[in-house]
Amino acid sequence: MSDRRTILIQLDPDPQPSSFDRVVAIDAGVDEVFSYGSVRAEQVEPLVHGAIFTRGPEDLKRTAIFVGGMDVAAGEELLQRVLKSFIGPMRVSVMLDANGANTTAAAAVHAARRHLELSSATALVLGGTGPVGQRSALLLAHQGADVRLASRSQRRADAAATAVCEAVGSDRVSGYETYDDDTIGAALEGADLVISAGAAGVRLLPRDCWEDAKALKVAIDLNAVPPLGIEGIEVVDKATERSGISCYGAIGVGGTKMKIHKAAIRSLFESNDKVLDAETIFDLGMGEGGA
Amino acid sequence: MSDRRTILIQLDPDPQPSSFDRVVAIDAGVDEVFSYGSVRAEQVEPLVHGAIFTRGPEDLKRTAIFVGGMDVAAGEELLQRVLKSFIGPMRVSVMLDANGANTTAAAAVHAARRHLELSSATALVLGGTGPVGQRSALLLAHQGADVRLASRSQRRADAAATAVCEAVGSDRVSGYETYDDDTIGAALEGADLVISAGAAGVRLLPRDCWEDAKALKVAIDLNAVPPLGIEGIEVVDKATERSGISCYGAIGVGGTKMKIHKAAIRSLFESNDKVLDAETIFDLGMGEGGA
Amino acid sequence: MSDRRTILIQLDPDPQPSSFDRVVAIDAGVDEVFSYGSVRAEQVEPLVHGAIFTRGPEDLKRTAIFVGGMDVAAGEELLQRVLKSFIGPMRVSVMLDANGANTTAAAAVHAARRHLELSSATALVLGGTGPVGQRSALLLAHQGADVRLASRSQRRADAAATAVCEAVGSDRVSGYETYDDDTIGAALEGADLVISAGAAGVRLLPRDCWEDAKALKVAIDLNAVPPLGIEGIEVVDKATERSGISCYGAIGVGGTKMKIHKAAIRSLFESNDKVLDAETIFDLGMGEGGA
Repeated sequence: MSDRRTILIQLDPDPQPSSFDRVVAIDAGVDEVFSYGSVRAEQVEPLVHGAIFTRGPEDLKRTAIFVGGMDVAAGEELLQRVLKSFIGPMRVSVMLDANGANTTAAAAVHAARRHLELSSATALVLGGTGPVGQRSALLLAHQGADVRLASRSQRRADAAATAVCEAVGSDRVSGYETYDDDTIGAALEGADLVISAGAAGVRLLPRDCWEDAKALKVAIDLNAVPPLGIEGIEVVDKATERSGISCYGAIGVGGTKMKIHKAAIRSLFESNDKVLDAETIFDLGMGEGGA
Repeated sequence: MSDRRTILIQLDPDPQPSSFDRVVAIDAGVDEVFSYGSVRAEQVEPLVHGAIFTRGPEDLKRTAIFVGGMDVAAGEELLQRVLKSFIGPMRVSVMLDANGANTTAAAAVHAARRHLELSSATALVLGGTGPVGQRSALLLAHQGADVRLASRSQRRADAAATAVCEAVGSDRVSGYETYDDDTIGAALEGADLVISAGAAGVRLLPRDCWEDAKALKVAIDLNAVPPLGIEGIEVVDKATERSGISCYGAIGVGGTKMKIHKAAIRSLFESNDKVLDAETIFDLGMGEGGA
Repeated sequence: MSDRRTILIQLDPDPQPSSFDRVVAIDAGVDEVFSYGSVRAEQVEPLVHGAIFTRGPEDLKRTAIFVGGMDVAAGEELLQRVLKSFIGPMRVSVMLDANGANTTAAAAVHAARRHLELSSATALVLGGTGPVGQRSALLLAHQGADVRLASRSQRRADAAATAVCEAVGSDRVSGYETYDDDTIGAALEGADLVISAGAAGVRLLPRDCWEDAKALKVAIDLNAVPPLGIEGIEVVDKATERSGISCYGAIGVGGTKMKIHKAAIRSLFESNDKVLDAETIFDLGMGEGGA
């Protein structure tokens, strides 16, 4: 049993590497966090080689890589570069959580699971083409739900729905165009669950719409900055009953998100070959209790 | 009692965050220092949110923020941004010590207190319009001294004196123009204390002037790079008697400055609502003994 | 006996400070690594002053400086700036290992010492004008070997040989021009040892040439990226017999390199006045066993 300190190498495309991700890494018990900001794709290889060429095979699992930052596309590019920089068994575990999208989506779907049998549920995801929305749709589809992925543009909604279907190997995700009360009402018709994952400060769902939705049992808003995406929900809602519906706000699911984030970080150090993305991060939440 | 590691987030507008401030933070016992350089005002909010959204209310006092750097104006702007980024009780303690100005001024005034009853003293501050000079004048006025704030320009001296009076709620700080032996002699007339806080390598006070000053009891020079501001003082002077006057050089007050700096860092972690600026940092020096 | 944490200040001219050097510092037991990237020469002085003005004389040896990065010339300039920034006894230990050149050359020459009496050996260094090549030549000359420093240009080979002779105070290093089988064969004639230290992916020595070299006993290739500089050697070779010659590849000497690197880091904290360059780093390897 080695007593080498655990090291997490934080790769962040933003100019200042996220303090949020650094604090969570420390609180997950990592001994040393190496934080790199303004990381460009071509800088990844030497940083990864520094991770894999310094410790012996039995200690490789005590070094890991975290890819974060505000820009999900940039984060995904960095992750691909990380994976390409490994040399056979010379590799370390790596986690992607750009903009907290994977841990946030996982926390939202775990909150829904407390109230619904997802394999027989119908879910509407508003703001479904964004990173959190797509990941929420993917996790819901993976759990067997019928998913309605909504956007203001039918074309973009369909494209994202197709991408999720291909990723999950499912045909139960469909694109919905929602731009007024009528189209929103139609998308909500028969849905058990609505998750709002749109841009900060944009109202996506008026109160009248969701209070009238007869099948609706759970409503989750992932925006922390007022006005929230779902009118009438508060950021601190956590299984709060409103008009007979269980409501969650961003802070209400924040505790679960944080537990999942820390569990994911800790799991990186169990072996040197993990690649944590949306689904594997969701699975880690299984043992972490509810919201 | 939480056992979470203490974290100090160092925000520095300079390209390379100060190694001085990092070493002092470590030696003050901080577990983890997150050092950010080239910090611009618009980058502050997400860095602060990473501090306040990651730990529960009872652990917020185990995270704190330090604003440093060579440029005092830039540091003050960052501090204002930090304060604006807090959300009600979601806040952490913060300290400003750009260019060491607050701790240096505090150390100088503490050295003077060992020899003088400041509430009845008259003090001349040379280089009084700079950051250390203004803060020294402010602390002296706060202790009840009559303060003569000197500059080569009467206009700038008056402006700084007015600013200090307004900050302290006092009318006992006056601007003095000093540019030759006569004007310096007039400013020194009747002064018990002189503090030289001018730019590095600029002689502000010839030996003849201060050796002739009959009332003078204490002379303090805060410049570490020869030639010093007060001719005849050595950087290592520490209550050294010269012509019957107690003299201090920059290294002579350095021990007190360091103790105050460390005490200030430690006090950040006592609660989550401290804002340490010149006066509060000075008060921390009260329990730290002499120079 | 102080219990202050040990601090290594890593100065790296590259945009992202080397993760390799950070991991090795941690594994050498350093408590805190301050990593600075994009370090320019004019930024060195304040960073050094932060190291020497913060801890008392008895604790100065618990802070040290490491200069690394890919660019050896830039690293040497930073080292010179570090040395100029010290003020008499106010100094800390410092190590230069830009691009791993010093530790790699030391590991290669230590591998050769396992098989040869260097004081009576003749050595050929291919790629001898590069940083690792020059340092290998220097260490071999220092051990008393006859050294043939080879390059594709006679002029550059001679210039580097002259520089090494002056550094060591020897006249036993000569420049060789090698560009085809005949010139390589001539350079190998009578050599006991060949070290290949050229650019990655460039073949410098065909298999026929070295298998025909009658005097040759040891062949060392320091390139980790295929094709290697010496045809027929494998990166993992470690005293591997090939055609009666003891062969080493880059990974084969990597264990020794790592031990030397860590021993060098640890030695920095034994006193506050060490300056570790090629020769002193080589000497540290004496107690570290073989490859």
